[in-house]
Amino acid sequence: MSSKANAFYAQSGGVTSVINASACGVIETAREHRDVIAKVYAGRNGIIGALQEELIDTSKESKAAIRGLLQTPSGAFGSCRHKLKSLEKNRAEYERLIDVFRAHNIRYFFYNGGGDSADTCLKVSQLGESLGYPLQAIHVPKTIDNDLPHTDNSPGFGSVAKYVAISTREAALDVASMCASSTKVFILEVMGRHAGWIAAASGLAAEQEGDAPHVILFPEVAFDKKKFLARVEKSVKRFGYCVVVASEGAQTADGRFLSDMGTRDAFGHAQLGGLAPALAAMVKKELGYKYHWAVADYLQRAARHIASQTDLDQAYAVGEAAVKMAVAGKTAVMPAIVRGKGKRYSWRIGEAPLDEVANVEKKMPRNFISRDGFAITPAARDYLQPLIQGEAYPSYRQGLPRYVRMKNELVPRKLRKRFKVA
Amino acid sequence: MSSKANAFYAQSGGVTSVINASACGVIETAREHRDVIAKVYAGRNGIIGALQEELIDTSKESKAAIRGLLQTPSGAFGSCRHKLKSLEKNRAEYERLIDVFRAHNIRYFFYNGGGDSADTCLKVSQLGESLGYPLQAIHVPKTIDNDLPHTDNSPGFGSVAKYVAISTREAALDVASMCASSTKVFILEVMGRHAGWIAAASGLAAEQEGDAPHVILFPEVAFDKKKFLARVEKSVKRFGYCVVVASEGAQTADGRFLSDMGTRDAFGHAQLGGLAPALAAMVKKELGYKYHWAVADYLQRAARHIASQTDLDQAYAVGEAAVKMAVAGKTAVMPAIVRGKGKRYSWRIGEAPLDEVANVEKKMPRNFISRDGFAITPAARDYLQPLIQGEAYPSYRQGLPRYVRMKNELVPRKLRKRFKVA
Repeated sequence: MSSKANAFYAQSGGVTSVINASACGVIETAREHRDVIAKVYAGRNGIIGALQEELIDTSKESKAAIRGLLQTPSGAFGSCRHKLKSLEKNRAEYERLIDVFRAHNIRYFFYNGGGDSADTCLKVSQLGESLGYPLQAIHVPKTIDNDLPHTDNSPGFGSVAKYVAISTREAALDVASMCASSTKVFILEVMGRHAGWIAAASGLAAEQEGDAPHVILFPEVAFDKKKFLARVEKSVKRFGYCVVVASEGAQTADGRFLSDMGTRDAFGHAQLGGLAPALAAMVKKELGYKYHWAVADYLQRAARHIASQTDLDQAYAVGEAAVKMAVAGKTAVMPAIVRGKGKRYSWRIGEAPLDEVANVEKKMPRNFISRDGFAITPAARDYLQPLIQGEAYPSYRQGLPRYVRMKNELVPRKLRKRFKVA
Repeated sequence: MSSKANAFYAQSGGVTSVINASACGVIETAREHRDVIAKVYAGRNGIIGALQEELIDTSKESKAAIRGLLQTPSGAFGSCRHKLKSLEKNRAEYERLIDVFRAHNIRYFFYNGGGDSADTCLKVSQLGESLGYPLQAIHVPKTIDNDLPHTDNSPGFGSVAKYVAISTREAALDVASMCASSTKVFILEVMGRHAGWIAAASGLAAEQEGDAPHVILFPEVAFDKKKFLARVEKSVKRFGYCVVVASEGAQTADGRFLSDMGTRDAFGHAQLGGLAPALAAMVKKELGYKYHWAVADYLQRAARHIASQTDLDQAYAVGEAAVKMAVAGKTAVMPAIVRGKGKRYSWRIGEAPLDEVANVEKKMPRNFISRDGFAITPAARDYLQPLIQGEAYPSYRQGLPRYVRMKNELVPRKLRKRFKVA
């Protein structure tokens, strides 16, 4: 089975409010298996840390600090968007990884990220094999985009979904209370460049006819200016106001992002504003309504203060399961969240082979979007609702959340060669 | 002393996440004094409701619904920005108010708002007197801008302050974890057109050297592009990233708002974006850093999910005290929050005469802003910190806050004359 060796853990891509919970799951579970996993080294700034031999020794962190990861958003060890190219194009990077792993007796590779990192994880596992340095590579799923296949949902998404649904409900109450004489249209821009999962979650804010959001703009539905304006006007006339939640990936039929609608700054440079101000200007020009807009940006994916308990539990569980899979001798797999079949929501951890996960993007099913393209369906609601259940409040000190600070001490280098990341 | 009559309550101006707590304080306390106050009528959409004789009968609401106001953001009866002009310019409006009050036997007037409404409140009280219809007019303080005089702070501000401080801390962790290879500058735009109180509150997020926010832009300090850019660059070089919190009221020495820096849309129309995208573009152009920006807009003042318990308690207390003052026969006063002198924060409700409150704007003291103009001082921190203490979580159902819906039944009209609000 497994021989005693060190483990490498890295966070990859855009961070989430619960990715550190997965780190906590990995590290705590590894500590319970010291007979197999000696130490967990974390990559400083993700995979770049492995390439540059900047390994954080998590054994230097106290039990309390590691526990504190559970309630601390974003990447405690740093993350990066560096994607390893194909083996043919950049074999040097893969070989460097194996060199670093070999030098530090790393035989377990836990990569916490989305589709790209699943692909990297798979390749590293394959290459290690062919270079005579077998590694167990386990992918730990994470992405607010919720686009990983073979898992019912992706850790990180549920908390963004909760934040967006709550923010939509709250801002809508504000607009509703002033709309008789003031702002009539409010536009909230949310993340989701390729899929409308996050925008869809705003739909949970509505409980009954007339509730916000009145218009959701999905990347999956080609933007039709005329239909959009008609819908906004109808909502204002009927309910007194209109709340629009727009996915940053909303685009026209010819594939142009709405966020790039020709906005120019004083110097003539393109792309100053985002989608929300562009839509607001359109509404003002065509319908004349007073508007306000908000862009949540990082606030939504860092909002640990209102994380979903379900999401947090799952984020921890995939970290824990990844280590258990490694200890059980598995490789090139990913712990997946499997939804129970009952009417009452339940979930368990299953296992997905990485060759089926890597580079596959899970789109939102068409039957999750209403026929007119501006709302979610009951099927979407059934899917989304359980993911935002529970409030995983952090502890507070002096009115602010107590987020941990890690020591992040580096392991002494063993390789003489430095490596420059392209 | 007081004779039994009805009361009128109205919400005025921009709403807050705890203004309904003041309504709750007014209504619950009035219900305890039924011998003096028969019913509380709420203005539908604020003072416009009084002018148009659209009075909501709050006695139709259940005890539970009224209690639910405590945890429901924004204005449950509607608000408006309608400001009564001077007596000389629009005597008709004041006379109409008295007519409506007389018709409905309203002898108590509770006006829940900022400086403008304090002024209206005072005038109504004076005019009633001169028209032979004496009213007791009590102002209930509320404003996220925290600019009311004679009160240590304004209900509504503490919760925005808490939201902004938490959001700054959270987003900063996101940037910090990615900055080595990605976004280096993050800009958060917050409210505060005339005073920097809200932007100042972001300073609470910093615990130690190097913590965000690294730059705060106050309306009180003239924007100096060169100094700003130098500060951003220094922060990026020293800490790897820079978090900027900018008040929407930030302006240049000649009084130009930074949010109006010549931005044009594709059609050449001005003022598309806000301040945040404008600053981001400046940073990109001059320093070349990758950036992200967020505009919190209504999200910050509607964020009941993370309201300050201190703020909530005070919002209720001023509502309660207003009724007690009325019952005690007082008029033309405002309950004020008085800070205790001890080292440990304490507060009690005092009383301020309206003629000293109306139309006076409390600016942020200069000694609350650091000499370089980009940070808060320890004095500011001492003042601000107690106001964000405690987490007043609402209850949840299916993962979302349970905000109440009022019936908002109107009292039958008594006047034959309609009134058109200009």
